[in-house]
Amino acid sequence: MNNLLLAQSGGPTAAINATLAGVLEMAFKREEVDIVYGAVNGIQGVLEHHIIDMREKIKGEADLKKLCMTPAAALGSCRLKLKRMEEDESEYQKIIQFLQEKEIHYFIYIGGNDSMDTVHKLSLYCEKKGIKDIFITGAPKTIDNDLMGTDHSPGFGSAAKYIATTFAELERDCHVYSLKAVTIVEVMGRDTGWLTASSALSRMNGGKGPDLIYLCEVPFDMNHFIEDVRAKLKIADSVLIAVSEGIKNKEGFYLSQEMQSKTVDAFGHTIISGAARVMESCVRNEIGCKVRSVELNLMQRCAGHLRSGVDIEESKKLGELACKCAIEGQTGIMSAIIRESDAPYEIQYKAIPVDEVANKVRSVPRDYINKEGNDVTDKMLSYLYPLIQGEALVHFHHGIPDYFYF
Amino acid sequence: MNNLLLAQSGGPTAAINATLAGVLEMAFKREEVDIVYGAVNGIQGVLEHHIIDMREKIKGEADLKKLCMTPAAALGSCRLKLKRMEEDESEYQKIIQFLQEKEIHYFIYIGGNDSMDTVHKLSLYCEKKGIKDIFITGAPKTIDNDLMGTDHSPGFGSAAKYIATTFAELERDCHVYSLKAVTIVEVMGRDTGWLTASSALSRMNGGKGPDLIYLCEVPFDMNHFIEDVRAKLKIADSVLIAVSEGIKNKEGFYLSQEMQSKTVDAFGHTIISGAARVMESCVRNEIGCKVRSVELNLMQRCAGHLRSGVDIEESKKLGELACKCAIEGQTGIMSAIIRESDAPYEIQYKAIPVDEVANKVRSVPRDYINKEGNDVTDKMLSYLYPLIQGEALVHFHHGIPDYFYF
Repeated sequence: MNNLLLAQSGGPTAAINATLAGVLEMAFKREEVDIVYGAVNGIQGVLEHHIIDMREKIKGEADLKKLCMTPAAALGSCRLKLKRMEEDESEYQKIIQFLQEKEIHYFIYIGGNDSMDTVHKLSLYCEKKGIKDIFITGAPKTIDNDLMGTDHSPGFGSAAKYIATTFAELERDCHVYSLKAVTIVEVMGRDTGWLTASSALSRMNGGKGPDLIYLCEVPFDMNHFIEDVRAKLKIADSVLIAVSEGIKNKEGFYLSQEMQSKTVDAFGHTIISGAARVMESCVRNEIGCKVRSVELNLMQRCAGHLRSGVDIEESKKLGELACKCAIEGQTGIMSAIIRESDAPYEIQYKAIPVDEVANKVRSVPRDYINKEGNDVTDKMLSYLYPLIQGEALVHFHHGIPDYFYF
Repeated sequence: MNNLLLAQSGGPTAAINATLAGVLEMAFKREEVDIVYGAVNGIQGVLEHHIIDMREKIKGEADLKKLCMTPAAALGSCRLKLKRMEEDESEYQKIIQFLQEKEIHYFIYIGGNDSMDTVHKLSLYCEKKGIKDIFITGAPKTIDNDLMGTDHSPGFGSAAKYIATTFAELERDCHVYSLKAVTIVEVMGRDTGWLTASSALSRMNGGKGPDLIYLCEVPFDMNHFIEDVRAKLKIADSVLIAVSEGIKNKEGFYLSQEMQSKTVDAFGHTIISGAARVMESCVRNEIGCKVRSVELNLMQRCAGHLRSGVDIEESKKLGELACKCAIEGQTGIMSAIIRESDAPYEIQYKAIPVDEVANKVRSVPRDYINKEGNDVTDKMLSYLYPLIQGEALVHFHHGIPDYFYF
């Protein structure tokens, strides 16, 4: 038997199931592959031997299409990161032993930075142990768009489209009163400002979009911020502001850090939120006008009803490529996108070594942000624009989207 | 000259411009009407003599269609409530004098409870003063769905569709990890739970939807709530909760009141928000599992990209009717919907005396809520279901909705 295993990991996105559908489509049609397994809850499911036969769940073209349109990881996710091999080999042994037991020769892992770390470590482990018949590849996924080696990441375009659309709508909402008012919208992005930057795309059809944009790549200064807001309030009643959840001051502390508990997640990341709330208090105290904060929160990553056509198509293709590479004997690679041109938008798909990706972060280049650090430049807009084009329309039934349920 | 004036007021919705389009379509085609004026920022614009000629802004069918698809009040809004006539007649005099000066005989005001109060007071004033050639009518609008006299209110169906869709998506997002976790989602609704109830429509396509639903019509008890959550956590990893922003304890205090400043808005309403945050802290302290709160905030009222086809059609028709009634000599009325049947969904449009509407609140009947006060009943679902049917698709351009800008 020559079986294949796939799994999903990391935070949900609106496109990760499109990548899953891509892997499945490829796996189902390749005659090298016998059983196609899915692990429930990522690598944790592999460790717990919790796998399912995907052909029993996905019965045909219609199921595959519905899966492709469904947000959040259908197979479940986890936040488990493998220990360093040098520290503890037991998890590695357990995983590989299980794969061998189930005659699994191909393992495709869809996820972000931490998942690519798993692909990297497992493929290194196989190399070290001389295991030559298990091929491990990754397909990228992250709304944060912070993966190295790929021009952009599946899920980002859809989240960016949601954010751009929502800012266009919030702008209209905020504009209706003639009262001086400030609205601060917090966008996801722990370490990078890509998502927050996409709020600027709300200007494409004549809207003014956000008046101020603060990304976490530029150290945040509260006094400058208050000056910026005062200046904008002089020329407009309604000031709309986009801010990354992860903005930090010049000492490197999260703006929200003082307000937060010192809790960390399973990866040791500090749990942050509330940058906009801190800024809100400051505007209230310093300026005294009407002010409110809004968090786009989970909605920005799971809005399956509003997805980028480009993103969904690419997400699927990247799944197909990661699957194809494994079947054809590659290991330790991730499928990626290389951009050839912005306009017309042209890309190539390519397999890249996963060690170029794992545990790295692709930040926004400084010249994508204006000199003052409170808006983006045309370079950023040219980069972002193609990624939100097209609408991957979901089918509605009973008035709500008709998503796939296992 | 026989001119017409229209204005919008109250909080923005995704459907209020559809009502505006309905008024305009009717006004433009009736030969009784000469100039069609729009007041900028509602009745405040009338007081400040800030009006525009609508034919200069809306040049044809295409503009009208685009306007119909655009969220938030295109003419701007205000929060101005007229003083009681007995207290101070000066605003009334100023308004009527301006209408007479501009030869305006028809005034159509689109808005919620407070706007209907204005329609009521102004028409009473005209009656008292023997002014027989000014006809004042209202067209309803409020996402809160709390207007008396009409089966439901324009804007509500679209907000309900957004909420139902978002809960279907949040459910999937929350479900991906195998960790015990509670997600508390706060929905708008200061005095009534209609919007929060519509989260239950997320169950229509096989999803479990929210595990618990708390509306402001039932006094909230924190101990019962914690018991409810504990019981749900026994049978599921992920517990999703919908709660009205305006829930109060049995003493009638807003749950969030202690956490809030004592600020009130221009109408004297207490500014509330943060019920979900209070509940979040409680779950963290009492149960200790992972817990987070999410506010649907402004997005739920301005999501023009996700609107109910039924809502948009009805919103337009109610604008047409309010306009027609004024032109045909009625005053002090509001256009309303009378429901004849749930399934098949059948309604009639009717003009009702506006004093049946002004300053009243239509709460959720107790039998629309389950005995335990933590979910809705089938009666509620039968009521809500028809209102979110159909999709009023917006045209996308450059990857974002192509909305109307004056």
